[in-house]
Amino acid sequence: MKIKYDLIKKDGNARLGKLHTNHGTFDTPMFMPVGTLANVKTLVPEELKEMNSGIILANTYHLWLRPGEDIVAKAGGLHKFMNYDGPILTDSGGFQVFSLAKNKKKDITEDGVHFKSHIDGQKLFLTPEKSIEIQNKLDSDIAMSFDECPPASASYDYLKKSLERTLRWAKRGKDAFNNPNQSLFGIVQGGPIEDLRKYSAEETVKMDFDGYSIGGVANDGESKDDMYKAIDYSVPYLPEDKPRYLMGVGEPIDILEGVERGVDMFDCVLPTRIARHGNVFTGEGRMNLKNAKFKEDFTPIEDTCDCYTCKHYTKAYLRHLIVAGEQLAGRLLSIHNIRFLIKETEEIREAIKEDRFKEYKEEFISKYKE
Amino acid sequence: MKIKYDLIKKDGNARLGKLHTNHGTFDTPMFMPVGTLANVKTLVPEELKEMNSGIILANTYHLWLRPGEDIVAKAGGLHKFMNYDGPILTDSGGFQVFSLAKNKKKDITEDGVHFKSHIDGQKLFLTPEKSIEIQNKLDSDIAMSFDECPPASASYDYLKKSLERTLRWAKRGKDAFNNPNQSLFGIVQGGPIEDLRKYSAEETVKMDFDGYSIGGVANDGESKDDMYKAIDYSVPYLPEDKPRYLMGVGEPIDILEGVERGVDMFDCVLPTRIARHGNVFTGEGRMNLKNAKFKEDFTPIEDTCDCYTCKHYTKAYLRHLIVAGEQLAGRLLSIHNIRFLIKETEEIREAIKEDRFKEYKEEFISKYKE
Repeated sequence: MKIKYDLIKKDGNARLGKLHTNHGTFDTPMFMPVGTLANVKTLVPEELKEMNSGIILANTYHLWLRPGEDIVAKAGGLHKFMNYDGPILTDSGGFQVFSLAKNKKKDITEDGVHFKSHIDGQKLFLTPEKSIEIQNKLDSDIAMSFDECPPASASYDYLKKSLERTLRWAKRGKDAFNNPNQSLFGIVQGGPIEDLRKYSAEETVKMDFDGYSIGGVANDGESKDDMYKAIDYSVPYLPEDKPRYLMGVGEPIDILEGVERGVDMFDCVLPTRIARHGNVFTGEGRMNLKNAKFKEDFTPIEDTCDCYTCKHYTKAYLRHLIVAGEQLAGRLLSIHNIRFLIKETEEIREAIKEDRFKEYKEEFISKYKE
Repeated sequence: MKIKYDLIKKDGNARLGKLHTNHGTFDTPMFMPVGTLANVKTLVPEELKEMNSGIILANTYHLWLRPGEDIVAKAGGLHKFMNYDGPILTDSGGFQVFSLAKNKKKDITEDGVHFKSHIDGQKLFLTPEKSIEIQNKLDSDIAMSFDECPPASASYDYLKKSLERTLRWAKRGKDAFNNPNQSLFGIVQGGPIEDLRKYSAEETVKMDFDGYSIGGVANDGESKDDMYKAIDYSVPYLPEDKPRYLMGVGEPIDILEGVERGVDMFDCVLPTRIARHGNVFTGEGRMNLKNAKFKEDFTPIEDTCDCYTCKHYTKAYLRHLIVAGEQLAGRLLSIHNIRFLIKETEEIREAIKEDRFKEYKEEFISKYKE
C-alpha cells in the first residue's frame, strides 16, 4: 500500500496534516531523526517512541556499503533488521555521493555517477535504477529518487543542465521502481533560481510521485536566503494533496521557516552530531555543556523539557560525563536534542490548529539566539 | 544505618544470602557491574534494573579526579548525582593507584602513596584517611579500606611488609571513617601464601569491619591457582555473618570457583570492556561477533537469553553495528554481557537453594570453553 496524506488545516501556508504509512500514521509537520546506518546513533527504538518520534530516516548509500542491501533484505527488510516497526524513509544516496566525495574525483555521466567509497576507496557506480533497487530491497516506507545535488553557487547553466538530468533520472528510477509497499518521492532541484525551481517542480509533478522533496538547500554553503528562495520558488507548483519534505534541514528556526512556506517534513543529523560534541538545544539557543559554569549546576538542561534526560539528570552530571569522555553523554544529549525538535513540531502543529502559527514562530525566534 | 547480611543457606561452602542496605536489599552471590565514572558505560539505571542488577560499583580514584568528590557531595551524594537509587559500593582507589600507575614512578610511604594522575601527570597523594574522606563524601552504601595491591609474584618478605602496612592503613581508615549511613569493608591481602593470608584475615577481622574483601587476586598476571589459594587461605578466618567480596573477579568460571569457596560478591569491567570490542559471553564461551560467519545470522546471541538485546536483535544486526563502528553496538553487547553474569548468579542461587551447586558448576564448566 502507498502512503496517504491528509491535509487537515492550513494557517497561512503552514500545513497541519497526517501521513498514513504501512507502519503507522504520524502528524505533520514532523522532524525525522536520522538513523544513518540503521540506528539513530546511540539510541534504541523504544527511546525514539518515548520522545514521540513519528518517522525516522536511513541512508541508502551507507547501507549499500554496510551491511549491503541484500543482507537487509534477507533479514526481512530494514524494519525487521533494525527492530523498528514505525515508518522509515530512505534517501537516494545522491546527497552522500556528492557530499562524501566532495573533495574526491567523481564522474557524473548520463548513466549515473562513478565515484570512490569513503571507507576504502573502492570504485563504485550508482545509477537511478541501482538506487531504487537498493531502496526497494531495504523496503523503507518512503524512497527518494536519485538526484544530483549541485551547490546553490553553481552557474545557471550548470544548475539547468543538472536538473534536466535529475528529471531524466527521476523518470528512470520511477520506471525501475518495483515495491508495491513502498512510496516514491520526486525531488525538486534548481538552486535558488526562480524559473529553474518552477520548471523542476512542474516537470517532477507531471511524473506523479507519492510526495515531493525540496533538495539542494543543505549541500555546501547554501545561505538561509538560498534556502528560503528554493522553498518559495518550488512550493507553489507542488500539489496540496501530497507531502513535502525539505531535505537535510533541521535547525530549530529553519524548521519554522520551512513550515511557514508549506513544508511538512524535515530531517537533520544536527541533534545527534552536536550531542556528541557536548552541545544541546534550548529555547534560548544552543548551549555547550562543557562550559565550566555548569560544574555545579544541579538543574536539568531545561526545566520545562519533558525528555528522559531532563527528567533524570543535571547539567553538572552531564558535564561530568562529557568531560570524562563517557559515551553515555552522547546518548543522553541526543535524547534531549531530538526531543527538542520533535516537541517544536508538536507545538507548531498545536499553533497551526489554533491559527496562531505566525505568533508562535515570532515568539520562538525572539527567544532563540542562533 | 549499616548493612546487614543474612546467611540463608549453605551448600558446601557456597552461601545463599541477602544483603540489606539503605538503598535496598539484594541476594547473594551477586555480580556487581562496574560504573567507574558514575555510570556503567553506555547504560542507564533503568537498564541495570531490567537486568536484575542488585548493586553497582563506582571508582573512588576516578571520581576523586573527575568530577571531584565535593561536586558529588554537593549533588547530594553519588546516588543522586548519577540518578541511581539502588545500592552502590565504592572501592578505595588503592587498586587504581597501583594499576594505572603501573609503569610510572610511585612512592609508597607509611603515610600513603605519592603518584601521578593518569590523565594529566599531576602529582597526587592518596592516604587511607583521604580515601575514606572521599568515600564518605561520595556516600556510597559500602566503602573499602585503602590497601596496597602487590602482585602475587612479589617476594614473601615484600608481601608480609605490605600486608602489615595495609593493616595499619585499615586501622587508620577505620578511625577516620565518619559516615553513619555507610558501611566499611576490610581487605585481606597476602598473595598466594597461606600463613600471610591467615594472618591478614585474622588481624583484619579483629578490627570488626562490616564485611571483608579478598584483594590481590586480579592485579597483574595472577594465575587461577594464585586466586584459588588466596580465597582458600582467607575464607576460613572470615566470620560467617558478614559478606565476602572477591575484588575484580568476574570471568564466568571464576565466579563459580569463588562461590564454591564461600564468596558472596564479585565485580569486573570485563562485560562492558569486551562488549566495546565486539565480544559476548555465551554458555559455550566467549564469541566474537565481528566474525564474518555472523553476517547473515538472523538469530539472537543466545536463544535462551532473556536480555533486551537477545529479545530484539540478531547477530547479523549487531555485527553490522560493530563493523560500522556504531556506539549502539557497545551498549547492546554490554546489556547482554552484564545480564549473562547476573543470570549466572541467579542460577547459582537457585542451585544452592536446591543443594545442587556442585552439579550446576560442573555442568556450566563442561559447556563453557574459556
